[in-house]
Amino acid sequence: MEKETARIEGFSDAVFAIAITLLVLELHIPAVESNNNREVLMNSLLAQWPSFLAFSLSFFSIFIMWVNHHKMFKQIYRRNTPLMFANGLILFLATCISYPTALLARYYSTPSATVAVAIYTGLFVWINLAFNLLWGIASRNKALLRPEISTDAIKKIRRNYQYGIPVHLSAFLLSFYWPGGALILCAGLWTYWAFTSRKLDLSASPTANLL
Amino acid sequence: MEKETARIEGFSDAVFAIAITLLVLELHIPAVESNNNREVLMNSLLAQWPSFLAFSLSFFSIFIMWVNHHKMFKQIYRRNTPLMFANGLILFLATCISYPTALLARYYSTPSATVAVAIYTGLFVWINLAFNLLWGIASRNKALLRPEISTDAIKKIRRNYQYGIPVHLSAFLLSFYWPGGALILCAGLWTYWAFTSRKLDLSASPTANLL
Amino acid sequence: MEKETARIEGFSDAVFAIAITLLVLELHIPAVESNNNREVLMNSLLAQWPSFLAFSLSFFSIFIMWVNHHKMFKQIYRRNTPLMFANGLILFLATCISYPTALLARYYSTPSATVAVAIYTGLFVWINLAFNLLWGIASRNKALLRPEISTDAIKKIRRNYQYGIPVHLSAFLLSFYWPGGALILCAGLWTYWAFTSRKLDLSASPTANLL
Amino acid sequence: MEKETARIEGFSDAVFAIAITLLVLELHIPAVESNNNREVLMNSLLAQWPSFLAFSLSFFSIFIMWVNHHKMFKQIYRRNTPLMFANGLILFLATCISYPTALLARYYSTPSATVAVAIYTGLFVWINLAFNLLWGIASRNKALLRPEISTDAIKKIRRNYQYGIPVHLSAFLLSFYWPGGALILCAGLWTYWAFTSRKLDLSASPTANLL
Repeated sequence: MEKETARIEGFSDAVFAIAITLLVLELHIPAVESNNNREVLMNSLLAQWPSFLAFSLSFFSIFIMWVNHHKMFKQIYRRNTPLMFANGLILFLATCISYPTALLARYYSTPSATVAVAIYTGLFVWINLAFNLLWGIASRNKALLRPEISTDAIKKIRRNYQYGIPVHLSAFLLSFYWPGGALILCAGLWTYWAFTSRKLDLSASPTANLL
Repeated sequence: MEKETARIEGFSDAVFAIAITLLVLELHIPAVESNNNREVLMNSLLAQWPSFLAFSLSFFSIFIMWVNHHKMFKQIYRRNTPLMFANGLILFLATCISYPTALLARYYSTPSATVAVAIYTGLFVWINLAFNLLWGIASRNKALLRPEISTDAIKKIRRNYQYGIPVHLSAFLLSFYWPGGALILCAGLWTYWAFTSRKLDLSASPTANLL
Repeated sequence: MEKETARIEGFSDAVFAIAITLLVLELHIPAVESNNNREVLMNSLLAQWPSFLAFSLSFFSIFIMWVNHHKMFKQIYRRNTPLMFANGLILFLATCISYPTALLARYYSTPSATVAVAIYTGLFVWINLAFNLLWGIASRNKALLRPEISTDAIKKIRRNYQYGIPVHLSAFLLSFYWPGGALILCAGLWTYWAFTSRKLDLSASPTANLL
Repeated sequence: MEKETARIEGFSDAVFAIAITLLVLELHIPAVESNNNREVLMNSLLAQWPSFLAFSLSFFSIFIMWVNHHKMFKQIYRRNTPLMFANGLILFLATCISYPTALLARYYSTPSATVAVAIYTGLFVWINLAFNLLWGIASRNKALLRPEISTDAIKKIRRNYQYGIPVHLSAFLLSFYWPGGALILCAGLWTYWAFTSRKLDLSASPTANLL
């Protein structure tokens, strides 16, 4: 059976690639008077560390989202309208990331850090739910999946994303008490996801192993 | 017969993907003094609701345009110069969407809402006309279409897009009297188009069902 | 013989698609005080006509550049380093277009219109030269071309782009005396190029007719 | 053996294409009062030469990075998680280029030029290290490489990128004493890389010669 999702994957790839690259537009160089000496510029650059942190965190978050998206679509062979819109929701949320990234960059070193971090981690709760929704729709109807996929593999993928829900929620709740800790948890989650997605990959049949 | 429109579709996909992702650049984070407390930032964020509304509405509008574009190009196998330029017109209008989106975000909660909404809904009248033009050009010459397509299916697609003209015009006219209502109608139209495009899809032969 | 230029064409397509879509970022909505009435917004919008003109002209210029790029690459089957860099030059110039477009939008209705139009039309002289360079490199070595291409077709393409040089130069020179006329000539040139590229297409063998 | 890296290459191509095109957004047209005469605009444009220089240098740097990326991936047939992340690092650094480009454009003609040039050349040290890392990971495990590749060719590629380390480091160190010289060295390096990548290409077997 041929895959009929090539177009969706191509469009999704393009959106992920653009969203990941546009992040850099939120890195604004500091405006220092040109007659200042170089220490002033150096200090202004160093003061931008929340921008660099937010940019890096969001870049690798979208990168791992893209990796996971492909791991999932390797198992999806046919599409229907709900699947199209669940995928559209993931793309919408991926595109949104640049906004809370800018908030984080601007407000992380201010008393409003809590608000910025809560919105940032809150978005990833939604992203996690959207991935669960996509896999829920795909796996509800086995006709949409790769024919050789085992019931076991379907459950394994489902559990993998379900486990993400409480952890992402914890990061969101933590952001109200310890914003820095919430970001560390968030970065840790993506690292974890990167490695579990690898396990998924190995559990699949070797012939399906083409990313 | 091989399809010779792969390149046009690839280029169009890229333009849709970029246009949909660039929308987020019009979401500007609020500039609040860093020594303010978090309620001030929260309130500034909530006051941006027209931006979030405009961004979401435009994102899903472009997404459904992309879905429709592919549904139509599944039936188009060959190209000629008028078809190339009708497609160029659709891409031009898709690219334009970000401008009235920014207008809507900026002026929806002001006395000038009428102007912003009229331009926004007016653009979608043009987009609808451009889709009608593209299908008109494609279907005028059966040599451009998928060989197995029935005269009935051609007419069905034509009617589907023709019905959009009076409804989009109504949304445009409504915008002068009840801007909010015009936007609701606009959102409703896209939802309707999403579902009718699904019907189209089902009416096509199963072998053509690869998006 | 298989084509080995698929990657270059894919990358070039992406750059053209991004360059054409980024143009819209130079369309800035007018900043009108929110307590103003709608006539003020309407007038501010109408006063932006040079922006809309510049955006439309540049959009269709890049679109026709893309069409021509593909027409040319349909005849190019192999690559070498000079060809890669001539193509890189075309992409560089295509990317640049957004800058003189912004200049045109900002200064067309000022006494500095001459400068803006001269830079705008001047860029297209360079673009024309870059296309001549690309075809010169490709056709100097017949091993790079589609094996079945006739010497006649090679010359026809060369002449087609060579004729563009004096006309683009005239538009550039005219810009110092009659900026509006230079833009009209420029738009006319693109229209002419659109139609001659069609002729090229018909003169090629039918099997090569896949864009 | 089929290549399983098509998806990674497609995604990387898209990121390179976007990163290269976004550079133009840092070229801001000068804001001159509209009632000024044309000499004022001309002078403001000429005063922007560091912007044009930085834009051109970065454009061709990313272009040659893309060429090298493909040269390398022509030899890589399978992927693993470390390879995915080494590639992600290259994309991250490619995306970053726009920031030091803007710094260079803004501060090159000020007393802070040293800082801007050091950051600019410093980024290319990291990019060089990331290419070394990618090839190190790929060549550590011959199962990831094109089956027919010779041990000699593997070493040749390794040496080619290793030679870049001291030269890029020299450019970085030179930037503290002679910023202009560091940029000249940087441009020279890219030119050199363009030509060595050509040699690599010739050394590969003819059947692998499809970019």
